[in-house]
Amino acid sequence: MAEQIPRPADLETLGLSFDEDLHHARFDLTARVARHDGGLYGGTAIAASVVAMEAVTNRGALWVTTQYVATAKLGDSIELASEVLATGRKVTQVLVRGTQDQRLLFVSVGSTATPREGGLEGQYLVMPNVTPPEDNDPMILGFGRSDGFRGFTEQVEYRQARLGEKEESAPPLVMWSRLRGGRSVTPAAIAFMADMVPGAIARAAGLIGGGASLDNSLRFGRIPRDEEWILLELRGQMAIGSHAHGSVKVWTRDGALVAVGGQSANMMNMVDPKEFEGWESLGMAPPL
Amino acid sequence: MAEQIPRPADLETLGLSFDEDLHHARFDLTARVARHDGGLYGGTAIAASVVAMEAVTNRGALWVTTQYVATAKLGDSIELASEVLATGRKVTQVLVRGTQDQRLLFVSVGSTATPREGGLEGQYLVMPNVTPPEDNDPMILGFGRSDGFRGFTEQVEYRQARLGEKEESAPPLVMWSRLRGGRSVTPAAIAFMADMVPGAIARAAGLIGGGASLDNSLRFGRIPRDEEWILLELRGQMAIGSHAHGSVKVWTRDGALVAVGGQSANMMNMVDPKEFEGWESLGMAPPL
Repeated sequence: MAEQIPRPADLETLGLSFDEDLHHARFDLTARVARHDGGLYGGTAIAASVVAMEAVTNRGALWVTTQYVATAKLGDSIELASEVLATGRKVTQVLVRGTQDQRLLFVSVGSTATPREGGLEGQYLVMPNVTPPEDNDPMILGFGRSDGFRGFTEQVEYRQARLGEKEESAPPLVMWSRLRGGRSVTPAAIAFMADMVPGAIARAAGLIGGGASLDNSLRFGRIPRDEEWILLELRGQMAIGSHAHGSVKVWTRDGALVAVGGQSANMMNMVDPKEFEGWESLGMAPPL
Repeated sequence: MAEQIPRPADLETLGLSFDEDLHHARFDLTARVARHDGGLYGGTAIAASVVAMEAVTNRGALWVTTQYVATAKLGDSIELASEVLATGRKVTQVLVRGTQDQRLLFVSVGSTATPREGGLEGQYLVMPNVTPPEDNDPMILGFGRSDGFRGFTEQVEYRQARLGEKEESAPPLVMWSRLRGGRSVTPAAIAFMADMVPGAIARAAGLIGGGASLDNSLRFGRIPRDEEWILLELRGQMAIGSHAHGSVKVWTRDGALVAVGGQSANMMNMVDPKEFEGWESLGMAPPL
């Protein structure tokens, strides 16, 4: 049986509701889809774009790029408008604009697709050898806030894994991630959890912290039903005058590759780990 | 001295001309920017988008995603219209639409940027060990045409390199590439040459050929002046019912990472290598 699109669990995660024609949707910027500072979390923008593309085409997401243009504040109502650019027998191409009171917040382009029977199937990469989620403690992301505001991490649990082998390049940041409440993985859920490349760029540079994402680009594979944990393999690639690029690969615990992607960011919020230890002694939580 | 933007060499490669306000540009679909079948080559669409974004912002390209919506035929005139979505002190966000007679051919989103003095600088990946361009013979791309039509490869030379080491995953396709006539590498030139992921997906699957790119997403590093050869390290990642994803890393011969990217494609044009040997005996050139 084909899954219902849009998926009810995605609507619940994002607080998203659609007009009857499925070309328009909206959500309120509440704490559970916000950044730690209350702004619009990039993962929310790309996840909502994925759901909007799937809804208007009645197909699963194949790839999406979301450009982050402006932010919004807690309580804002955010509108999504989808434009179908081309419809093929198996692939549809879509553009989504996210606005708040007609102010552009983000633009997404992407394709949804129905797999072609007898078409090419395969996976050509191997998952890194890491410790399982059960062997790792939950990570606390973002500078600790004394008011208990947790933003989107109300909905997401992250656990940093340890790598089994050394490699020639800077090691990736490997994190297990799941939605709280036993919700299973969907393309939108991956998009919601995987907006984490800036932290990996900081790590690759020997620093702690992150930056402001400029965009996120994700490409989806076949996602098993009822999968809870995913592994985010995050790599910093390079930085040029504060602007930096990195990649993400997303795996199931059985080693199936379910998404790949890339992200650029403005790396403005980093500290030296030595400096950070001082902050920790003040009772502040790690930024990433 | 800062480079002139748009770069005259890019305008020459693409046959691109701008209106005085730099928000609009156009080029004719001639053989030298076409696919082997005379259609619009994806690398041309993304390269022209890069030049359009740079021109309207007077900054170098940082990242770009181009969604390929429709094709065009030899002799068509293609218009580009750029919309600046947001301008920051160091980063500008742009959307470009490519049309032919008001028919949408492609949409590009991306950022241009001015490096921030004292901002993060670094490279966190290592180039694979490959044979230099001088040790490899030119590759002939595309099925040979008896009429001598070469499309964009009139302007680009490719040489397949050999890898120095084995790895656990399927080996990447590694190709040296340069513009003919001694022109040096620019972001647009990389975009023009690097639209080659489908061939790497076919290789990873043990097949020969390629497919129709759905999009291309590229992120640029610091590109040395007067660099001629670049190495394309191309990897197939996965395929789901004929729709597949892959990545590209672009290196100079000194091992500087100058671009990274990802691409999705519909893998429709592949043959088994055994079957292909028969075609070769008929005097046909390899598809990739």
